[in-house]
This record gives sequence, structure tokens and C-alpha cells, in this order.
Amino acid sequence: MRNIKLTLEYDGTGFRGFQRQPRLRTVQGVLEERFSQVLREPVKVIGAGRTDAGVHAAGQVANFGTTRPVPIERLAGVLNAALPSDVKVQRCEVVGEGFHARRSARSRRYAYAVIERDCPSPLLGRFALISPMKLSDERMAEAAAGLVGRHDFRVFQAAGSETRTTERTLMRLECSRRGERITITAEADSFLYQMVRLMVGGLLAVGRGELPPGALRAALESGERPSGAKGPAPACGLCLMQVSYEDGSA
Amino acid sequence: MRNIKLTLEYDGTGFRGFQRQPRLRTVQGVLEERFSQVLREPVKVIGAGRTDAGVHAAGQVANFGTTRPVPIERLAGVLNAALPSDVKVQRCEVVGEGFHARRSARSRRYAYAVIERDCPSPLLGRFALISPMKLSDERMAEAAAGLVGRHDFRVFQAAGSETRTTERTLMRLECSRRGERITITAEADSFLYQMVRLMVGGLLAVGRGELPPGALRAALESGERPSGAKGPAPACGLCLMQVSYEDGSA
Repeated sequence: MRNIKLTLEYDGTGFRGFQRQPRLRTVQGVLEERFSQVLREPVKVIGAGRTDAGVHAAGQVANFGTTRPVPIERLAGVLNAALPSDVKVQRCEVVGEGFHARRSARSRRYAYAVIERDCPSPLLGRFALISPMKLSDERMAEAAAGLVGRHDFRVFQAAGSETRTTERTLMRLECSRRGERITITAEADSFLYQMVRLMVGGLLAVGRGELPPGALRAALESGERPSGAKGPAPACGLCLMQVSYEDGSA
Repeated sequence: MRNIKLTLEYDGTGFRGFQRQPRLRTVQGVLEERFSQVLREPVKVIGAGRTDAGVHAAGQVANFGTTRPVPIERLAGVLNAALPSDVKVQRCEVVGEGFHARRSARSRRYAYAVIERDCPSPLLGRFALISPMKLSDERMAEAAAGLVGRHDFRVFQAAGSETRTTERTLMRLECSRRGERITITAEADSFLYQMVRLMVGGLLAVGRGELPPGALRAALESGERPSGAKGPAPACGLCLMQVSYEDGSA
């Protein structure tokens, strides 16, 4: 049984998230169904990150075991021929049997895209949040810097989620502008449920001037969500860019 | 009756082109249906360019007449509230009664996007052609330069189309690369049916080394399509960027 590591790209618009759910179209569900058909054996796929409904991926990582002797250099083509156009395999590698896409991951990097525009955009709005309000990227960058480090991030976790611990190491949270496009980059060992979108929601409130830049750091320390916080930013702007592993491979 | 000039953006994926057709979802059909409903009077929309099925627009221009006294600064919002998410109004202006989006247009500018990549891309492939073959943008630029000017472009017209004359002035045909992305920009007084996609199809054959750079110019002069030409490039890579008018307005 070979253990196969996959790098995946998908347009999240037509999926109810990554994780398999009965009767819903999910990335894991589609991968397992199509891979099982084409390889003619039951396939169970493990994903590095459980992206939410509507969230995209340019570099999701997954692994699965197969007994089929398809040459590794042909495997991506074989799998892609069985996949719909909104999810495709970018790379296939044979990895050691100990490799587990989720547990072996050292960090995940996400990008959130915002376009400052006063009208809706059919071309850009599929993969970005369109903001008719002007945003101060300087204030957002200042607020973002205050969240970097090892902290208890429970104020940036969606209500009702359960995890062993809400401590995470946020290695990077940056905000940069290029013309009308603002990109927020977030990298952490792992993220709590909706943590990126809740942090981005807070950063956008800061960017619009509804919260002072220090409010997010203060929320982290007090454990109380700031009153002006608006809930999670919409899923369409978020994309899982890269998952990194122990050996430095991405 | 005010004459309204609209600038439109649309994702062409879900449309069978711009022009109204019975029982098919087209841009003109959707605009006329929704505008008539929201303005409660029959609306007839004139478009500057009849984009094909699957072709996108960032700057299509159209005009229509209305008797309704909606303030012009509120009109885009009113119309957009009635439109689906894949076509939206970017700008509304009141123009003179002589303004006709198609007949008054001085030139149209299109962009064709190609991404050089060895695997399909769910994120980029909606708005670009994914080319697994390496392309020489230098050869393509050389071939493109040979087509600029006033010529009979009938070899770059889809079979079966009828027009009064097949002479057109191609003001610009350029090919530029930025990393894996190649952009072909074409501007002309007007284009024959599928002319941009047929020229791009020829340029791609040159870029792959299947045709010499001089082959397209030779085809123009001989009136015979080169044997290695591959037909029109796919619609998904093409976007109508801008329509320009006599007074210099875009």
C-alpha cells in the first residue's frame, strides 16, 4: 500500500466545505467518490485543513493509501481525468507511511483578498470580498501585528466549536495593498474554527475606522470580543495557499 | 426619454453570449428582462460588442432609453439590485439622444489571458486558457506585430458569417508575459466574428512552434488560412476590456 501525498486546488464556490457530509457536495466527498471509481478500490482521503463552505484552496494538501500500481508520474493525470473542473490535483508524490496530511502539518498559510470598489464585480467577486468602504491598510497592518505570537485565540473562534486547547501560534498576520487590492496573509501552526475569517472581520472593522487598531490585541488579552466586531468575513475572499511539513516540504 | 449609457462587467461562463436569443440565457436578454421589471416599462438594450458564449467583459458598453425619473446617481444601484451576481453595472451616465453604443463606438479593446501550467487550474481556468505547452512570447509578439494596420481580415473570420466588408483597422495587437501569465491585447475599430479568438489561435500555434512568426501575416496577404492553424482559442480566456467613443470617453 503506497501512501500518496496530493496538492489540491479548488474553487470553493460549489462545495459545502472540505469535510465529507451526507448528501452534500464537499471536496473530500467528491475526491473519495471519484478516486474510488477510477482506482476501483475504496479510497479514504485525509485533508490538511477543513476549509469551510465557499473557501478556496490553491495549495490544500491531502493523502490517501492505494494498492494500485499506477506509475506516480501518471497518477495526477489519471485522477484529474476523473475530477470535475472545480477541483484538480496539482501534484502527486509517494510519501512514507507515517505521513498524515493533517497531523504531520507544521503550519498553514491562508490569504484573504479584499477589493476596494464602490460597485459589485462579477469578475473579481468570486475570489475576493468587494468593499465599497475605503479601508486603511496602515491601521489594519498595525492591528494585525498585535496578534502575532503564541496566544489563546478563543475570542477568534466561532461559537459552539470544540477543541482541546485554544492556544495557537500565529507566525504571520500581514496586510498589504496593491492598488485597490488588499491582501491579508495569515500563517499559524493551526487555526481554530473560523479563526482567519473572524480575525479578518476584526481587521476590516479597524480598516473602516469602527475599531481602534489596538482593539483586537485588547480582545485577545481580555478574552472578550470587541462590541464593534462584525463576525466572520465572507468565505469567498479566503484561500488556503500552502501547508508546510516537518521536512520543509510545502 | 433619457438615453442612458451603461458600463457593464460580466462573467461570461453562465451566458450564451451577449445577444438576445429565444429561450437561452444571454446578457442582453437578462438586462432587458430585469430592467423592464424594475423600471416597469419595456427596455431595449443596445450593446457595443456582441461577445460570444463564454466570453467575459470588464468594460462592455450599452445604452437604453427610459422615461423613468430615477436620479442618475442612484440608477446603477437600482439596476444592480435587479441583476444576478454574474452581470453588474459599473457606471451609468446620461448621454445625448444620438449616442448609440455600437454605432458610436470608435474602437474595442479585448484582452486574452493564457496561463502556462502543466495541470488544470480551478482558480485561474475560469478566466484564462491553461496551456500545458511552453509558449514563446517573443515569437508571438513578432507574429502579432505583423497583423497591425488596415487589412482585409477575412481569414480571421469564422466561416458562415456575413458582413458588408471584412476590412478592419487593427490598432494594436500585443503579447506580453508576466511570469506564467501571457496577455494578448487586441484593439480595433471593430472586429469580425471570432476575429480575436482566431488571431489568438494563430498566435498560440506560433508560440508553440507549430507555425513560423511570419505565417499569420502571410495568411492575411494570401487570404488562405495556414494549414497549422487550430481554429479559435477557447472563449474562457477572452475579455472585452474597453469600448472607446468619439469624444474620447471610454
